[in-house]
Amino acid sequence: MSDQEIHEGLEGITVAETRLSFIDGEAGELVIGGYPLSELGGNATFEETLYLLYNDRLPTQSELEEFSDELAQYRSLPEGCLEVVRSAGEAGVVPMDALRMGAAAASLDQDGEDPERDKLVIVARLPTIVAAYWRARNGEEPLEPREDLSHAGNYLYMLTGEEPSDAQVGGLEAYLNTVVDHGLNASTFTGRVIVSTESDLYSAITGAIGALKGPLHGGAPGPVLRMLLDMYESGDVEGMLREKLEAGERLMGFGHRVYKVRDPRAEVLSSAAESFYQEDGDSDFFELAKEVETEAVDLLEEYKPGRRLDTNVEFYTAVLLHGIGIPDELFTTTFGIARAGGWTAHCLEQLENNRLVRPRGKYVGEKDRTWTPVDER
Amino acid sequence: MSDQEIHEGLEGITVAETRLSFIDGEAGELVIGGYPLSELGGNATFEETLYLLYNDRLPTQSELEEFSDELAQYRSLPEGCLEVVRSAGEAGVVPMDALRMGAAAASLDQDGEDPERDKLVIVARLPTIVAAYWRARNGEEPLEPREDLSHAGNYLYMLTGEEPSDAQVGGLEAYLNTVVDHGLNASTFTGRVIVSTESDLYSAITGAIGALKGPLHGGAPGPVLRMLLDMYESGDVEGMLREKLEAGERLMGFGHRVYKVRDPRAEVLSSAAESFYQEDGDSDFFELAKEVETEAVDLLEEYKPGRRLDTNVEFYTAVLLHGIGIPDELFTTTFGIARAGGWTAHCLEQLENNRLVRPRGKYVGEKDRTWTPVDER
Repeated sequence: MSDQEIHEGLEGITVAETRLSFIDGEAGELVIGGYPLSELGGNATFEETLYLLYNDRLPTQSELEEFSDELAQYRSLPEGCLEVVRSAGEAGVVPMDALRMGAAAASLDQDGEDPERDKLVIVARLPTIVAAYWRARNGEEPLEPREDLSHAGNYLYMLTGEEPSDAQVGGLEAYLNTVVDHGLNASTFTGRVIVSTESDLYSAITGAIGALKGPLHGGAPGPVLRMLLDMYESGDVEGMLREKLEAGERLMGFGHRVYKVRDPRAEVLSSAAESFYQEDGDSDFFELAKEVETEAVDLLEEYKPGRRLDTNVEFYTAVLLHGIGIPDELFTTTFGIARAGGWTAHCLEQLENNRLVRPRGKYVGEKDRTWTPVDER
Repeated sequence: MSDQEIHEGLEGITVAETRLSFIDGEAGELVIGGYPLSELGGNATFEETLYLLYNDRLPTQSELEEFSDELAQYRSLPEGCLEVVRSAGEAGVVPMDALRMGAAAASLDQDGEDPERDKLVIVARLPTIVAAYWRARNGEEPLEPREDLSHAGNYLYMLTGEEPSDAQVGGLEAYLNTVVDHGLNASTFTGRVIVSTESDLYSAITGAIGALKGPLHGGAPGPVLRMLLDMYESGDVEGMLREKLEAGERLMGFGHRVYKVRDPRAEVLSSAAESFYQEDGDSDFFELAKEVETEAVDLLEEYKPGRRLDTNVEFYTAVLLHGIGIPDELFTTTFGIARAGGWTAHCLEQLENNRLVRPRGKYVGEKDRTWTPVDER
């Protein structure tokens, strides 16, 4: 057994065929459902993107209406699910814990035996869970979802109680589309492993949420925003960036394990943010963010030459979601709301051609200990 | 990309070093924490087995007392967790869904930032969740856990409201020890993938429960019991077995993907069942089960020669747990209560030498679709 190679991170190990997304890190390319992200991100509604992932094509007008209506009708939470989410808000647990608790309980009125239905129920309910948690945490009563609003629009409505602007909805949809899927990342793989046992989609998505919670995966757009707000206040972008770099701090929002050039998602989110801030929000803040990006990329090349640390998805996630009015504490849960589209589509793909996932461990312990009763130890 | 080999089930791929358990399927050997199962299974209390997995050695008397006391003090559920479990019971969802909901909410009074503490909290609370669910489902009020009873004893007490016999506790402990860990199975691997993102143990164990729910993993000891009870009633073991085999039915309780000889767990559970039924329960039922085993193994060799379909863990799980008085609907959740020991130990092992799990997909979709607005489709 001593020559068993150990693939701890499964790097380079291919575990599935997928038609859902394609990443070329060297070229900075991301394809979702057959569309380069630049084609899809700012154009599609989130409902269109979901339909695309599930059906491998965009819907016609009537298909889109039917799909959107079905999704909308599942938004309300069963009472016990709403109660646990409310408890999570009142207890002040972190948002990803609340999302896990709500997702786990989202099947209280479902038997979990129809993946085609379950994928819609779970996707529909995550925004309701996040919004109900947030309101409970802030001492406000959770709001009933509105079926007449889009998935993105209703999420914003449930958070604030106000009907969002078209610019807000469009900006959020661009974000949701952009991060809806990204290959066999840890949370997506978690969901696939869970359904490989022929378990249900609530179990799979709950597990995936647990994986997304981890900072090595779900990341931290919150700190990017705090950095930008600090710089906005002080006005001294270059000075503050040099200070961080000279102190050996990592610059949040730059560099990615896969992308060696500008993350294609940063491109789409930057355009979406530009459109949004032209219509709504604080355009000075957006100008500052662009200045920070340019300055940071230059300084990273100066301080860490050859490392190719370019803008990543977190940078413009922070800029865009902040503009739309999503609190930074909900950035990762909003990421989960988006990625649920990819998770559910991957689960369905796994079930189409399933094989139980069961890797090996290399045993490094003893093998022949003999029992000694406790009073003789 | 066309020559990428796809490892769908990760068969033969080693993903981690582990000192927790070793399986030799050809030899029918299982080592847990350095002890052959035959040394550990019928001798240890479940608390001793947990301590062994966490510390790689058995505890002294005083260490065991301290460990048991700490574990016992975490048993009570936070109010919101108890409420969602009660809702699950009242809604009549399947037991594994209730366990998932309860596990997800078990951190309502915890911050999930201390894996050493969290592993004990989650292990301590799973029996409380299952028992509260079961009582709520049967219209009974959940019982508060008792700190003066052992982990196994308190579980039985919370289910029935009666203090269990020594034979019941000993039998259940043998079961829990026997199935506490079994290599990098799908649920254990799920837990490891989740903590590889540096997420918390509640998230990891909730995900693992979701994987264990799947029939390809958690299996189905319920049908074994129903078969045995049918045979007990009719008395015609050979005739009923031949009827099933001639109808092409699978005999539940025989055959395993890994073990090609008698599952070593069946051996330990059979001894534990024998001890139990000598002191308690219906000894005629145990005699019948032994007769079914002998007859079934002979007939399987007659009908499926060379297939080496021997007794598996499910067979004597059904016999033993039924005798102890655990309802067959709770067999898989009781499995989860046991396996939580292995899950948590694996999570700690993963965190000791962590690397984010991130495999690859092989992209088989299109790459250059161009956007068409919905009214032009």
